[in-house]
Amino acid sequence: MKAALLGHGTIGVGVDRIVKEIPGIEIVRVLALETDEEIIGRHTFSADDILGDPEIDTVIEVMGGIHPAWEFISRAMEAGKHVVTANKAVVAAYYRELLALQKKHGVAFRCTAAVGGGIPWLVNLSREKQGDRITKIGGIMNGTTNYILSRMDLEGIAFSDALLDAQKLGYAEKDPSADIDGDDVRRKLSISASVAYDCFVDEQMIPTAGIRSVLPEDLRAAREKGCVLKLAAFSERLEAGISACVAPFFVPRERLLASVPANVNLISLTAEHAGELCFSGQGAGRYPTAKNVVLDLLDIVSGVRCFYTEAAAPAAVDNGSTPTAWYFRTVSEDFPEDLVSERSGSSAVTKPLSVLEAFRLLDELRKKDPAVFMAGILS
Amino acid sequence: MKAALLGHGTIGVGVDRIVKEIPGIEIVRVLALETDEEIIGRHTFSADDILGDPEIDTVIEVMGGIHPAWEFISRAMEAGKHVVTANKAVVAAYYRELLALQKKHGVAFRCTAAVGGGIPWLVNLSREKQGDRITKIGGIMNGTTNYILSRMDLEGIAFSDALLDAQKLGYAEKDPSADIDGDDVRRKLSISASVAYDCFVDEQMIPTAGIRSVLPEDLRAAREKGCVLKLAAFSERLEAGISACVAPFFVPRERLLASVPANVNLISLTAEHAGELCFSGQGAGRYPTAKNVVLDLLDIVSGVRCFYTEAAAPAAVDNGSTPTAWYFRTVSEDFPEDLVSERSGSSAVTKPLSVLEAFRLLDELRKKDPAVFMAGILS
Repeated sequence: MKAALLGHGTIGVGVDRIVKEIPGIEIVRVLALETDEEIIGRHTFSADDILGDPEIDTVIEVMGGIHPAWEFISRAMEAGKHVVTANKAVVAAYYRELLALQKKHGVAFRCTAAVGGGIPWLVNLSREKQGDRITKIGGIMNGTTNYILSRMDLEGIAFSDALLDAQKLGYAEKDPSADIDGDDVRRKLSISASVAYDCFVDEQMIPTAGIRSVLPEDLRAAREKGCVLKLAAFSERLEAGISACVAPFFVPRERLLASVPANVNLISLTAEHAGELCFSGQGAGRYPTAKNVVLDLLDIVSGVRCFYTEAAAPAAVDNGSTPTAWYFRTVSEDFPEDLVSERSGSSAVTKPLSVLEAFRLLDELRKKDPAVFMAGILS
Repeated sequence: MKAALLGHGTIGVGVDRIVKEIPGIEIVRVLALETDEEIIGRHTFSADDILGDPEIDTVIEVMGGIHPAWEFISRAMEAGKHVVTANKAVVAAYYRELLALQKKHGVAFRCTAAVGGGIPWLVNLSREKQGDRITKIGGIMNGTTNYILSRMDLEGIAFSDALLDAQKLGYAEKDPSADIDGDDVRRKLSISASVAYDCFVDEQMIPTAGIRSVLPEDLRAAREKGCVLKLAAFSERLEAGISACVAPFFVPRERLLASVPANVNLISLTAEHAGELCFSGQGAGRYPTAKNVVLDLLDIVSGVRCFYTEAAAPAAVDNGSTPTAWYFRTVSEDFPEDLVSERSGSSAVTKPLSVLEAFRLLDELRKKDPAVFMAGILS
């Protein structure tokens, strides 16, 4: 395999270093904003040097962002090159287009590192579909928020202090919005659900609440119920469509999900024959993520020429069933009393509400109280 | 694929039913002690009808036990047939012979269901070795004992009552020795470590302690240290060889391993690039286990012609390093005082001891007190 890297940041450097030890794979060209010792002689400022080079059979996109990543990836596939990417944003945004290009050109398109970093999630999800039917997926898909919530839970510190530490450790970016508002998880759930159910679950259709306004008292409220607060994603295959949402959840302390430490991710699937299978590991970080990119490359070397699914018909999203109790904390005085089952100071636990109803209520309350906080309560 | 089943018990029936839904795989013959509606027309009492039939390209051994499973599997490979088995006993006992036969005849030999039941453990372990180096493996590999210890922990009931319930639910066999004495886990660790480190870790070399003599007070002692008692297996790649042992362990309550419920298994690997990856799911049961057998078949259909490793040179077992504290409970008065760091009634916590030292002490104490109980203490 003669491959080229688009991007030489955290993951790109990791991929390049791991591949150096692997016979049969060579990274012959590296697109990067600046050159350095490791890529001297292979560096280029121009994507054309890679996309137009017929010697290069595989393109590894690890630059991040949607543009120009989408243009480069699509041009690569149109030129008959295999593509491996770790970029969840571009995969979620152009899911159907990427799948169509992959099928049209018969190349491999793999993105295992895009969901769960170093966890072999998508590849196992795809494998477990064989001779079985996936009925549910979900879990903790973002290490930054799990780190923040773990610190807040263990040490009682404020959100802002935990976020600052996460930034110092390189777990959170300078602008942490995508992580703390749940958009990163939403993309990962969109990709995972689309693969799991062989359809297209548009990220825009997934109700998403983050942890930006979480307070230590919310974690205490979880603890009083024997739970731990976690930002999680859940999706289920239902009669009328696919349910899917991203939100903070009170997770009973004895559940595996409650024990996921620091910046670790844990993602699970439930299938009719296999039952529930959980996969956990580093959800980010140079080498774990790069390792999954390299495994994608090795799959291609061994002959893989596909994506994780062949179908991408738009799925109906149905968040109207399977009601559960929700925790709300708000200074707004307009909380509808008829929905309350339990009240304590500025917080309330609702009677069972569907995801749809809970997010409608959240939207209403947010108009009066931008710092309203909501969490589902798992039983 | 034209396959045949050797055995039509719990797993065999599951495999047969799942395969019925899969185009391209046909189970044309079933060796079973009795016939029934599901296998009428395909049933035989004679293995020769399968092993001698050149039309059959793949043999699925789900009869269990070492003999005649070994003879049938080896004859199948000698006849150029692929073999899939869920039988850990025969794989652990004839590991090197099976690997040699697989290589000699260039057939596929797969046994994913032999370790972890429905968990895709061996296949991921094998995958993660690529471009990486496995340094540690371990976890909870037996659902029966995890169920028993969970019940004892949650309800304070006696071992014998929990065992009886496990037997009623079909989690434990009539003779539960292999589960409760740790031999089942030892076999799984032997196979896993051999695959992980590309060598042969003989099951006979793995020090093993079970839970036959566990008392509610041992679980209370664990709880007082903020731990949960679990029967677990651990192995590490060291300078001088491979460390490996099976024993009850005090697992800190906040660890993922401590939250593994009922009859679930959780197995993890640590690799230099990937970091720690955990896999959990049903460690037994008809459909989860059969599903893994079927995935092995599908791998063969897609061209897999190998085992999970090519090397099986005997490994030196080195359990002399990485000392830790151990909990002992014994009525013997000969517990060496110089090893004690903490004493409470009939139990003691030792100063840090290597696995070798701890098991030597256990053997000594057992001469005086057959009901002595030992557990490692994880930090």
